[in-house]
Amino acid sequence: MIVVLKPQATEKQIQHILEKTKNLGLKAHVSRGVERTIIGLIGPEDVLRVTPLEVFPGVEEVMPVLAPYRLVSREFKKESSRIAIRKDLRIGDRKVVLMAGPCAVENRKTLLAIAAKIKKAGASVLRGGAFKPRTSPYDFQGLGEEGLKYLKEASEKYGIATVSEVVDPRDIPLMVKYVDVLQVGARNMQNFTLLRELGKTKKPVMLKRGISATIKEWLMSAEYILSEGNFDVILCERGIRTFETQTRNTLDINAVAVVKELSHLPIVVDPSHATGRRSLVASASRAAVAAGADGLIVEVHDHPEEAMSDGVQSLIPQGFSSLVRELKKVALAIGRDL
Amino acid sequence: MIVVLKPQATEKQIQHILEKTKNLGLKAHVSRGVERTIIGLIGPEDVLRVTPLEVFPGVEEVMPVLAPYRLVSREFKKESSRIAIRKDLRIGDRKVVLMAGPCAVENRKTLLAIAAKIKKAGASVLRGGAFKPRTSPYDFQGLGEEGLKYLKEASEKYGIATVSEVVDPRDIPLMVKYVDVLQVGARNMQNFTLLRELGKTKKPVMLKRGISATIKEWLMSAEYILSEGNFDVILCERGIRTFETQTRNTLDINAVAVVKELSHLPIVVDPSHATGRRSLVASASRAAVAAGADGLIVEVHDHPEEAMSDGVQSLIPQGFSSLVRELKKVALAIGRDL
Amino acid sequence: MIVVLKPQATEKQIQHILEKTKNLGLKAHVSRGVERTIIGLIGPEDVLRVTPLEVFPGVEEVMPVLAPYRLVSREFKKESSRIAIRKDLRIGDRKVVLMAGPCAVENRKTLLAIAAKIKKAGASVLRGGAFKPRTSPYDFQGLGEEGLKYLKEASEKYGIATVSEVVDPRDIPLMVKYVDVLQVGARNMQNFTLLRELGKTKKPVMLKRGISATIKEWLMSAEYILSEGNFDVILCERGIRTFETQTRNTLDINAVAVVKELSHLPIVVDPSHATGRRSLVASASRAAVAAGADGLIVEVHDHPEEAMSDGVQSLIPQGFSSLVRELKKVALAIGRDL
Amino acid sequence: MIVVLKPQATEKQIQHILEKTKNLGLKAHVSRGVERTIIGLIGPEDVLRVTPLEVFPGVEEVMPVLAPYRLVSREFKKESSRIAIRKDLRIGDRKVVLMAGPCAVENRKTLLAIAAKIKKAGASVLRGGAFKPRTSPYDFQGLGEEGLKYLKEASEKYGIATVSEVVDPRDIPLMVKYVDVLQVGARNMQNFTLLRELGKTKKPVMLKRGISATIKEWLMSAEYILSEGNFDVILCERGIRTFETQTRNTLDINAVAVVKELSHLPIVVDPSHATGRRSLVASASRAAVAAGADGLIVEVHDHPEEAMSDGVQSLIPQGFSSLVRELKKVALAIGRDL
Repeated sequence: MIVVLKPQATEKQIQHILEKTKNLGLKAHVSRGVERTIIGLIGPEDVLRVTPLEVFPGVEEVMPVLAPYRLVSREFKKESSRIAIRKDLRIGDRKVVLMAGPCAVENRKTLLAIAAKIKKAGASVLRGGAFKPRTSPYDFQGLGEEGLKYLKEASEKYGIATVSEVVDPRDIPLMVKYVDVLQVGARNMQNFTLLRELGKTKKPVMLKRGISATIKEWLMSAEYILSEGNFDVILCERGIRTFETQTRNTLDINAVAVVKELSHLPIVVDPSHATGRRSLVASASRAAVAAGADGLIVEVHDHPEEAMSDGVQSLIPQGFSSLVRELKKVALAIGRDL
Repeated sequence: MIVVLKPQATEKQIQHILEKTKNLGLKAHVSRGVERTIIGLIGPEDVLRVTPLEVFPGVEEVMPVLAPYRLVSREFKKESSRIAIRKDLRIGDRKVVLMAGPCAVENRKTLLAIAAKIKKAGASVLRGGAFKPRTSPYDFQGLGEEGLKYLKEASEKYGIATVSEVVDPRDIPLMVKYVDVLQVGARNMQNFTLLRELGKTKKPVMLKRGISATIKEWLMSAEYILSEGNFDVILCERGIRTFETQTRNTLDINAVAVVKELSHLPIVVDPSHATGRRSLVASASRAAVAAGADGLIVEVHDHPEEAMSDGVQSLIPQGFSSLVRELKKVALAIGRDL
Repeated sequence: MIVVLKPQATEKQIQHILEKTKNLGLKAHVSRGVERTIIGLIGPEDVLRVTPLEVFPGVEEVMPVLAPYRLVSREFKKESSRIAIRKDLRIGDRKVVLMAGPCAVENRKTLLAIAAKIKKAGASVLRGGAFKPRTSPYDFQGLGEEGLKYLKEASEKYGIATVSEVVDPRDIPLMVKYVDVLQVGARNMQNFTLLRELGKTKKPVMLKRGISATIKEWLMSAEYILSEGNFDVILCERGIRTFETQTRNTLDINAVAVVKELSHLPIVVDPSHATGRRSLVASASRAAVAAGADGLIVEVHDHPEEAMSDGVQSLIPQGFSSLVRELKKVALAIGRDL
Repeated sequence: MIVVLKPQATEKQIQHILEKTKNLGLKAHVSRGVERTIIGLIGPEDVLRVTPLEVFPGVEEVMPVLAPYRLVSREFKKESSRIAIRKDLRIGDRKVVLMAGPCAVENRKTLLAIAAKIKKAGASVLRGGAFKPRTSPYDFQGLGEEGLKYLKEASEKYGIATVSEVVDPRDIPLMVKYVDVLQVGARNMQNFTLLRELGKTKKPVMLKRGISATIKEWLMSAEYILSEGNFDVILCERGIRTFETQTRNTLDINAVAVVKELSHLPIVVDPSHATGRRSLVASASRAAVAAGADGLIVEVHDHPEEAMSDGVQSLIPQGFSSLVRELKKVALAIGRDL
């Protein structure tokens, strides 16, 4: 941690800081410049982060040097993590994993029909919400356990893994019985209660980035899960909120490479939420694979006109099939498979 | 709802939309222009919102006309709501309500000392977190029930109401025993599980705006609480995330007047989080009162150097006292009291 | 400047940096921590800023310590600047200066009528664009010199100063003949050619903040003007671009106090552009005065229905009059005058 | 244009609007709903855009239906434009065009050395600034005409086209003598004076997106150039400003596909500014090509440690060479060439 003093900081103020930090067990290096003095502090991270040096008299600015996350960092673990979704399916490997399905599980028949089609097209994970966090209390909120049962049935019938969102820590025991990957939605990225309890499960967790979360905050949220013992975390970039209104969100494609530098965790891109428009999903998907994403999660519905949520950004199964063919070529071009 | 068709939309596509919407019980007005056709749809809001007309062939854009919130709106209730925090203390009235205290309850002694001082300075509500949602899992997470007990003790000793954050729906029964107002933090603004359960309590809820929530989304979250039967919701503007880095957040002062136009609910401003720097709290507080806020919630700590969180933006009690004197004059200037 | 090295940086890399920076005349302080080494560099600012230390092998991050602006800073000049708009009118003093008028000068008659009314209401500066930068090439672009003549006439007839926007460096000689303050619009905040030439004039310049400029960038743009010799710069906060869509822009009210801390230059707030809606102008104006703004620039039009631009955010003269009465009270409450 | 009235709008207010719009030559369709009345207006665009219907009594909201740009739109010209940079070099074709070179032209020797290397690697356009708009007035501002001469020399020696930024309309006659493509930088995207004069030249113009410009505003700025007669406009996405601080800007990869839908103009991506870090340039470049960009403009410097600007985001020639090899494969995968 680096403490930059004001030009007019007095010797007494400097000594006060040095004393205080010494008492906390920190080691200080003082650099006295012509215009101002700078103090470098070295010591246990926890002490550094918690001490509010900004409020000490004479201090102008405090600059942290160390990243606040540990277990999720590349420094902690050099090799990229490969996470087993099922025995025969890992994410983080050479193979880019395709997840697809409707925004919400609406009924048994529709879900099974979609599952069959996306499986045939090449997807290995079926998505579908049983508990839907909706902006309006008057919108469809999901089928609950009934929806989970349909996911399980589709999973068994078509040999496809499943991912579904959990919104309440009390639903976790129920969810783990039915699905392979527990998803944390963007709105709950900093629901620390939920994160901590997911850290105690043994299921992979897919953590979506909050709509205006920095990459650092996102990694800190992942750290909550790892710090409880669950290292099977998949990150999911799903677009951030910006001033642009042509698209529902702005896909932060840079995040793929940044996350790969900072962390060993795999990263998936959601081109459906990141664009909000069906006609933009294909180009966003190609970009994501080309940028190095380990997987994609795409909304597919066979009757978008009747979808109960997000129909406007859902591909139809044929569209998804032809997208998969395109993506295979892009994956091969960068030395991966799909 | 208004459906704008593409210039090249065919008659068949228009008829498809008209048929579909007729079946849903909607009434359509068709305007055929030289360049394109526009369809106005009137009918039950729920049906309108849920039907994904954007995906119908020939449709270019769909524009909603009605606001999606009801119970929180001025159209639903013309008069501004006055919410009883305690028998003798209402917010939404002529009197601007001052809430103050430390970010977190750290220990009994400190809390009581601060409570005494802010009460003397003119605050009528004591703030202090017992459950702290922190970006890092390694940071101080609050004292839990012990902290709530100290709040209760301070409340009784100094005759001051209390507000504290709830982060887990399972903590609600505990919280209602100890505090007067249950606060929902910015990170949980769209934790709908939590909102819904708060809607079933009889305690006033202070709902902080999410760091990148639009005003509309914020009101929709309030609607979750009201729709469960609890109308005692206080909104709190605490700064939004923007590109500016000189301040921790950007105080959206416009939000005060916008909320007053759209809703009958009272609104409070948090100048501490909205600036993130002690030296900026006074000007932000004056602006908030001048703009028409019904209350302020200010971080005050008697030893910011030792605060376990947010020390950098906390006023010391003397600073708070002199701020209150300034604010009284501003309140009087706009015909209110404080 | 502080150079943070990567944990794995080698001794050879450290020596390479030390050699290089020594050759540039910089003085280095090396702090070797357990995890990583940090180098503090002291020397001439220009050298520091220009050397791309980020690209040296082994470097993780470079953190500048000194603010990049000089002449505009409080450190350069402790006392707040008072700028003479006319002999009898200064901004930056106890008195809050009111500027008002139409967005664009539309015709002689309308301008004179508005000038008379705002002068009577208490404004001391008349605003009105003769050269209008418009998003669309097909929109009204202003009357040019004709508009400037009407401004001059109104100025003489009613004893009111004038401010008008300059968009082309080639227009400066023309503008200085007619108006008292030359305004740089938000879109031209980083038109450095224009700024530099304004720095060579002797007229006060009002520099609007770019729609997504940080405060630092804004001060750097002011520095361009001061560095050419013109110290009479008035800053104008006019709202920034955020994700919120209820208002045209988000008034960054924090910017008033931040600018006061960092710079000696006066700051004005434009509540019309910062809200974009007539009904919000009054609360934003009160907030601005309460926060400490040295002036306001308000759009006023006597027939907003017929305004050729920005009618939707213009007050009518009666509305402006009653706002002025409100603002006088707020100004007095904080120890100023208006 | 659609005018949504307030629920409490009176019949008199409705008639006032109908009369007014009739006088303007607009045709109105009135839809009277249970809750509110909606008026659809059809007529000449210019009249619609300019009339401030928002300020009429009884009006709640006005929603424009038509896009405000014409000449740049796909509706105006269905086929994608192919722009000739030189006789033998077109952009907008199957072949993805590579532009590369230093941020600024620093001296003759360096420029020639870089030109030789990027040409060999596969670039067909050399970039390099002779007039540099810099945030600080104290930073290197470019070599001016001397720099242009070196560009010309490099162009002739290595048979490579050139692109360079123009910042002052008065420099245009000079620039057209030396370079093939005139670049408008992000800071000048709404310098309408400059745009209009570029519209009168016969040289291709590369228009960079402003750091916080919406896609619509960007296209409107292009419209300024086309409306003066110059249809040879190349758009350049270079990253937008968001809250994320890990990268210098956020590459809005969605913009590539959105622009392709809305406009016939070719679009180039600048992965150097869009990331701000050398290590992220490759993944951003691959994403851009995969998303469908018609070209890339990449900063390359053979001694980034000594670059006078943007060294931190410049590739070295070897890095550029190996990136080109990667990109060729990605281009082929999506049916293009490079």
